[in-house]
Amino acid sequence: VTRHSEIYNVGMSMSIGDVGEFGVIDSIRSLVSGCAVPDPSMGHDLVLGIGDDGAVWTDGYSQVITTTDTMVEGVHFQHHLISWGDLGWKAITVNVSDIAAMGGTPLYALVTVGLPSDTEMESVHDFYTGLLSACKEYGCCVVGGDLVRSPVTFVTIALTGVATEQLLRRDQCKLGDVIAVTGPLGCSAAGLDILLNGDPLEQESNFHLVKCHTRPVARLDAVQILLESGVNAAMDISDGLVADLQKMCLSSDVDALVYAKDIPVDRFLKDSRPVNYLQYAINGGEDYEILFSGNRQIVEEVVGKLNGEAKIIGSIIGHDKNCQNPGANILPGDTRVRILDEINGLMTIKSHGWDHFS
Amino acid sequence: VTRHSEIYNVGMSMSIGDVGEFGVIDSIRSLVSGCAVPDPSMGHDLVLGIGDDGAVWTDGYSQVITTTDTMVEGVHFQHHLISWGDLGWKAITVNVSDIAAMGGTPLYALVTVGLPSDTEMESVHDFYTGLLSACKEYGCCVVGGDLVRSPVTFVTIALTGVATEQLLRRDQCKLGDVIAVTGPLGCSAAGLDILLNGDPLEQESNFHLVKCHTRPVARLDAVQILLESGVNAAMDISDGLVADLQKMCLSSDVDALVYAKDIPVDRFLKDSRPVNYLQYAINGGEDYEILFSGNRQIVEEVVGKLNGEAKIIGSIIGHDKNCQNPGANILPGDTRVRILDEINGLMTIKSHGWDHFS
Repeated sequence: VTRHSEIYNVGMSMSIGDVGEFGVIDSIRSLVSGCAVPDPSMGHDLVLGIGDDGAVWTDGYSQVITTTDTMVEGVHFQHHLISWGDLGWKAITVNVSDIAAMGGTPLYALVTVGLPSDTEMESVHDFYTGLLSACKEYGCCVVGGDLVRSPVTFVTIALTGVATEQLLRRDQCKLGDVIAVTGPLGCSAAGLDILLNGDPLEQESNFHLVKCHTRPVARLDAVQILLESGVNAAMDISDGLVADLQKMCLSSDVDALVYAKDIPVDRFLKDSRPVNYLQYAINGGEDYEILFSGNRQIVEEVVGKLNGEAKIIGSIIGHDKNCQNPGANILPGDTRVRILDEINGLMTIKSHGWDHFS
Repeated sequence: VTRHSEIYNVGMSMSIGDVGEFGVIDSIRSLVSGCAVPDPSMGHDLVLGIGDDGAVWTDGYSQVITTTDTMVEGVHFQHHLISWGDLGWKAITVNVSDIAAMGGTPLYALVTVGLPSDTEMESVHDFYTGLLSACKEYGCCVVGGDLVRSPVTFVTIALTGVATEQLLRRDQCKLGDVIAVTGPLGCSAAGLDILLNGDPLEQESNFHLVKCHTRPVARLDAVQILLESGVNAAMDISDGLVADLQKMCLSSDVDALVYAKDIPVDRFLKDSRPVNYLQYAINGGEDYEILFSGNRQIVEEVVGKLNGEAKIIGSIIGHDKNCQNPGANILPGDTRVRILDEINGLMTIKSHGWDHFS
């Protein structure tokens, strides 16, 4: 609240680029949270509003999850680096990942596409073919949308899902929890760098990493295991481990310790980036693995059942206001995440480009 | 289907601008409709997919309606012609109008905004203030969304609502139905022309018409009356009377006769455009009145209860394949709508700019 009012009073003539993504979102959240929700006497009640991977409401019978995610040409993707088919696949995947991270089942998608008039019909066809193959993979379908002219391509998906059991929320981390991830991190960011550098794709590792970037897979397969196990909190990793763990910690009002050596990194990433693979795993976004926390025994069981590359990476601890992190100023709010190296020394968290307005 | 395959086989190397909005949408619809819906054995079933104002699914308890609508700078609005507050208001209104036209109650909105980095914080604040005042007016709330950088401003709302009784669908017009609208048409399009021409806003009529364009009101107030009356079909008028009635007729497989003299036109539009007000009422979009059809006695009762400017404007008749309309080539599919003048002569339907890609 303090941060918001600072921005608010001081910065009304500032641009959103100056204020930064988190400042703008804080300001909007403050406006929105002051508004009334629909009268629950009609039988529909909001369970969870802004702040998690999706919003949840109930009709007294089902819990309905809605989420939305957007990709803009030149900001989130570039046409020469991703095919139309992969773009369609990825647009569905990133939304399914949000539903999965809430413990839900994806059902119905609204697909909005902004396209320049000179876009070829074949591109549109490829886009929807990729998008529909993702829908088939995840068991959801397209029920509507909007097709509009736009000077740049953009894709906005709004996805509805349902949760039949309890929800997985990001604000439920408990002191003493251990933290785990469902799979290896950093591959997508390395894949993007390979594309940007024009590195040869004939190499097996480069091909794998690029595929992680252009055709990621949402961890819907992990949802039932997570729900049945009784973990405390979960969210998907879209902005990178540190950025997303920071959000999880802020909403649960806890801190996190992460042991760098325990972060799962696959052999392709190590092969391709032998020197700095850890930097990719710590800061690289768009892996769409699920980050979760819970009682150690429960999490160990989950990791065993996921029996691939899921790993425990650290612990939830109480919030320490005085502990500073050398990279703190790049994160929103108080520092919540500390990464420890092999000898438990504090690692500097380097900034990563996840502020969409800076 | 024939039209689609023609476009499809011939036109894969054509641009979407060449194919036109309806051709592209037809092509997408054909792809999407070939895909499976989620397994209804899980208890969730799709009631109505692509093709109406919104999609509808049920959990066996509630009917849930989802809809989405997008506004892109330079295509659907221009910043120098609409304030940020009005833009926010209108973005919610156009989606509420879709829910209303389905017979639903709007509940939860996901708000996605694409903004250039140099957008001022004050503009963002004004936008959300307008948007939230519309939410308050219609009894819905914002539960999430996405804020992204974009070279042009765009707004995509995905709105969820519920229908407690039967749905109002556009594909249920019956032979012998009369057609009616909930209020005057053409004001919004005239308002846009006034803005584009730079006409003086001090004139009462100009001020009124511009307000109809920048701050339209969704006819949520008419929903209960329509539902209780037992009308057969309904949809909202966003693209203009002829274009939307054509869609209604195509999906119901009927034709429509409209008597030009019966189309409700308010005194401000007549005052401002004494010569061509009818052209605005026939082709002008964005009025967000509801178009509906039903048994004459029922519709007369509804018109009485709406006791403002609602009027019966024509009749639903059987489809006549041989009847050509001079303006037919500007409408998608076979000609379905005929406008009759004072002496029942066939009026030429002039093209209006509702193809977003041409």
